[in-house]
Amino acid sequence: MLSDPLQNISIVLVKPQFAGNIGAVSRAMKNMGLSRLILVSPAQDPFSPEAKMMATSAKDLLHRALIFSSLEEALSGFRWVAGTSARQGRLRGPFISPREICSEIISIARSIPVAILFGPEDKGLTNEELAPCQALISMPTHANLSSLNLAQAVMIFGYELYMATLTNQTGGSSIPGPFPKLAEFQRVEGMYAHLEDLLLRIGFLDPKNPKRIMHTLRRIFGRANLSDRDVAILRGIFRQLDWYATHHPEEKKGE
Amino acid sequence: MLSDPLQNISIVLVKPQFAGNIGAVSRAMKNMGLSRLILVSPAQDPFSPEAKMMATSAKDLLHRALIFSSLEEALSGFRWVAGTSARQGRLRGPFISPREICSEIISIARSIPVAILFGPEDKGLTNEELAPCQALISMPTHANLSSLNLAQAVMIFGYELYMATLTNQTGGSSIPGPFPKLAEFQRVEGMYAHLEDLLLRIGFLDPKNPKRIMHTLRRIFGRANLSDRDVAILRGIFRQLDWYATHHPEEKKGE
Repeated sequence: MLSDPLQNISIVLVKPQFAGNIGAVSRAMKNMGLSRLILVSPAQDPFSPEAKMMATSAKDLLHRALIFSSLEEALSGFRWVAGTSARQGRLRGPFISPREICSEIISIARSIPVAILFGPEDKGLTNEELAPCQALISMPTHANLSSLNLAQAVMIFGYELYMATLTNQTGGSSIPGPFPKLAEFQRVEGMYAHLEDLLLRIGFLDPKNPKRIMHTLRRIFGRANLSDRDVAILRGIFRQLDWYATHHPEEKKGE
Repeated sequence: MLSDPLQNISIVLVKPQFAGNIGAVSRAMKNMGLSRLILVSPAQDPFSPEAKMMATSAKDLLHRALIFSSLEEALSGFRWVAGTSARQGRLRGPFISPREICSEIISIARSIPVAILFGPEDKGLTNEELAPCQALISMPTHANLSSLNLAQAVMIFGYELYMATLTNQTGGSSIPGPFPKLAEFQRVEGMYAHLEDLLLRIGFLDPKNPKRIMHTLRRIFGRANLSDRDVAILRGIFRQLDWYATHHPEEKKGE
């Protein structure tokens, strides 16, 4: 059990475009007790003078940022990942608000590392980048202007996390939650690949657009917080079904 | 009774030092449905190119800002004023947090105009400037770094105000939770019966003790909070798999 769950939460900026925003994010994180910053393919030098100026007293945090060239590398080893979005377009949700989920995230982060993804300033995260996420989080904004500055989005989220630590203290439940046993990112992705392959083989998925149904299945299993044992059982079922799909007589096709 | 209390709340920046921050405040305000900006003795031109750049799509709000040379003038006519502070030094408190007070502010703003004061970037509001305030509000920040960027402070406050409008309404929260769409008990039970039948047929479940694995599967789908659509998709998959299990040649048995 970690004493400070905020130390177990990484803010992952996916393809941030402006160094100044990376600096401002660093400051916002430190304001809210967060310390782990991960950058995926930043477009500008994250240690530029502008970034440092915007970081003010959070230059230490900025300098400890980890930099990766792909999201997959950056998420390696994480077992709970959430993505954020300002948009709530069709096929992407359902979304939950920071206020609804931050208390749960703090509980999870007491046991295992957690990653929260923020997309590029102009376009946000793509459906592909949101796919591995257990939870999809959208920032409540007024209809007048829903486009949040990147550092402002991190601030709102960090603020809700910090507020959740003030109410979700050690004094709460001592019953260990399901979180220590959550399956690793790579294992769950392997399971989805297996499931997609099976559903294509039995003709349930449209080969031209398998992602729509897979998105719904990812939402279902994402909310379920799968453990290693859950993944093992599901893959066992898929293997057994595979056998039927593979040994099915060809001539039945088209019936 | 105003329909939108946010239209009755003015954000008052007292002696802001940087034009860029005034622009960023404008954007944050518009993000949260606020529209009335008052500037008291700004040190830089609030309509400079940098201010407009930071305002992005909130230039309209910025251009409607009212500018005064003294706080007294700016507050003329207001009947409810609150001041914000990052510090909680002696002689200044007691302070209340945005979360604690914003619901009350929304209630007040349904009837009368409200002003919320934010001090200069470097020093914040003086005791003299806080003196006329009905409430003293301090932003919760982590001990690591309590100095908030001005636009970030306005954002947190605006966010709490906006969240308070969502809950402080005639009909309760307007954030549609995931719960109204949860599938009915009977539908989910029908799905489990279908799944159990399928898994027995393909030999995955032990016919003598099918409940152990089914229990795990119920835990997984139970945590997923299935909607009607989720159940429909899962049953579609089960039906397709059924077809394979049913049409599987008998002679393969025992292989």
